[in-house]
Amino acid sequence: MRATLFGGPGDITVGERPDPRLETPTDAVVRVTLGCVCGSDLWYYRGVNPHALGPIGHEFIGVVEQVGADVTTLRPGDLVVAPFTYCDGTCANCAAGWTGNCLHGGSFGNHGIDGGQGEFVRVPYADATLVKVPGGGHSDTTLKSLLALSDVMCTGHHAAVSAGIEPGATVAVVGDGAVGLCAVIAAKRLGADRIIALSRNPTRQALAREFGATDIVIERGDDVTKLIMDMTGGLGVDAALECVGTGQSMATAFSIARVGSIVGAIGVPHDSVVPIDTVIFRNVGLRGGVAPARRYIPELLDDVLAGRVNPGLVFDYETDLDGIADAYTAMIERRATKSLVRISAGQ
Amino acid sequence: MRATLFGGPGDITVGERPDPRLETPTDAVVRVTLGCVCGSDLWYYRGVNPHALGPIGHEFIGVVEQVGADVTTLRPGDLVVAPFTYCDGTCANCAAGWTGNCLHGGSFGNHGIDGGQGEFVRVPYADATLVKVPGGGHSDTTLKSLLALSDVMCTGHHAAVSAGIEPGATVAVVGDGAVGLCAVIAAKRLGADRIIALSRNPTRQALAREFGATDIVIERGDDVTKLIMDMTGGLGVDAALECVGTGQSMATAFSIARVGSIVGAIGVPHDSVVPIDTVIFRNVGLRGGVAPARRYIPELLDDVLAGRVNPGLVFDYETDLDGIADAYTAMIERRATKSLVRISAGQ
Repeated sequence: MRATLFGGPGDITVGERPDPRLETPTDAVVRVTLGCVCGSDLWYYRGVNPHALGPIGHEFIGVVEQVGADVTTLRPGDLVVAPFTYCDGTCANCAAGWTGNCLHGGSFGNHGIDGGQGEFVRVPYADATLVKVPGGGHSDTTLKSLLALSDVMCTGHHAAVSAGIEPGATVAVVGDGAVGLCAVIAAKRLGADRIIALSRNPTRQALAREFGATDIVIERGDDVTKLIMDMTGGLGVDAALECVGTGQSMATAFSIARVGSIVGAIGVPHDSVVPIDTVIFRNVGLRGGVAPARRYIPELLDDVLAGRVNPGLVFDYETDLDGIADAYTAMIERRATKSLVRISAGQ
Repeated sequence: MRATLFGGPGDITVGERPDPRLETPTDAVVRVTLGCVCGSDLWYYRGVNPHALGPIGHEFIGVVEQVGADVTTLRPGDLVVAPFTYCDGTCANCAAGWTGNCLHGGSFGNHGIDGGQGEFVRVPYADATLVKVPGGGHSDTTLKSLLALSDVMCTGHHAAVSAGIEPGATVAVVGDGAVGLCAVIAAKRLGADRIIALSRNPTRQALAREFGATDIVIERGDDVTKLIMDMTGGLGVDAALECVGTGQSMATAFSIARVGSIVGAIGVPHDSVVPIDTVIFRNVGLRGGVAPARRYIPELLDDVLAGRVNPGLVFDYETDLDGIADAYTAMIERRATKSLVRISAGQ
């Protein structure tokens, strides 16, 4: 099969890989229809975070091609959403709902597991990992939103859930990448009344507003803290969502968080430092991390299919497998918020 | 009146202060019966944290001496517990339950407010701040436990509540000071099945067991992590309570916390660093801080009066006002877990 290969920092090509086959009775092989490039892929591309050489990509939807003898909930031809991590569904962490921390799981597109930026993927623990999409004849708009459930929508939702957003809340979203934009959707979905999006990019500002942001602020650093404190009567927001993963974004999130609130953080940390004095002296908590996407997908899927949320709008660039290298550089150069890759036809 | 005076690091004496008087109609003046020395007082004594020169001490119980014209719930002669911070009970933070972060509040025994290690204290917002103790003729044992509600029992409870302890949980308490010991009580009270206390001190180990600890571990650093992971099937504890405030204790708490759990932290931070990779890659949260003691006291008071909890056992040294300097050095030299100071007679 043809698949995107990571050859080291800055080196993304399309090459040949062995066709995946069933290796255990709980496997499925999925033909990837839509894949995409994640912000975390860019950290590998830039050489900031390590990634095994070989297949890459952890977000995809596709059609089940083959199932192992023990797979009971899926059949060839089923349209499925893959969460960005596979999981056995039975370990202590899965049982507690932390499917992204499965004791026997891992991420697609790394450490020898096929990537979502290739034609086929062997999916371990297929029953536990994949979510079947009911119905058929879904529009391209719907399919893009289903693809967003693979990672970014679940990750934005995890920031919102982690921060404990309640109906009527005032929320600030730090970060206007695809995850930050999905966090706006999630905040609105959980009933936030006021959603302040931090963004300097007109395209992303517009999308944030479409997703439910009520306020856009372009300030940064101390200025944004002062502004948001002023906007909230000097108290700060009920929930600050940290959707970047840098020291500055973490500092900003804590600086605008109301006493007793929780910063919901999902950014892969780079130079992040948690301001412990704010934790202790203002009782501002910190929760978040790798999203338990498999746990979240079913409820979000319902909303996508009902047209209540449309996270697929984060894809503002698209190409096919041959264009994968530019799919990366478009995001690096900020020509794209998030790049969609059409791998094969059908649904 | 006579009161303990902080004259700078290492300088604790008893001196004369003006008798406090009502300054606003919402004030009360309380005659202190029992006060004590807090672990945080030792940071001032050591010169590590700043403290205004003058009165000191933020934990006390006593008898109402005078009330302002607008005080409606208290009368002279009432026995009261003072939370370590005063609060107006009406600001946005108080309304949300964060009485320790009152927008118009502050700590006793600092910045010109009388301290609990003196004969009398003017208490601002007396109705909102003080908790009246019902009944009379309380035993000395009960009175000591009421004194513990002023800070350490509420603070240990805050660690436990912040960590989200649920019935049946396995909990580890990092720190065997008075607050850590009270956190053991709190964990048991919230229904923890297994409570692992980290302590190398035989006296404190015995008290931890009396309070409900099921396991005592003496290891530190990597050894304690390995041991507790082994004790919990490789998963870690459902709740780790950080009751010290140092880098090592914070690192230990995070290292033994189960995926998806919350570290409940109340230690005043010194060289604490939050391991952000554990937060993100293991979904271990962090909550805690200055305890909203005023919110917690009523429910804990019920348990003290009913004899269900006995946090006063943390006092293993006592003296009177003239002995205050040794009350500090006894704790510094670890002759005492926590020093009680008998200021005046009666209840």
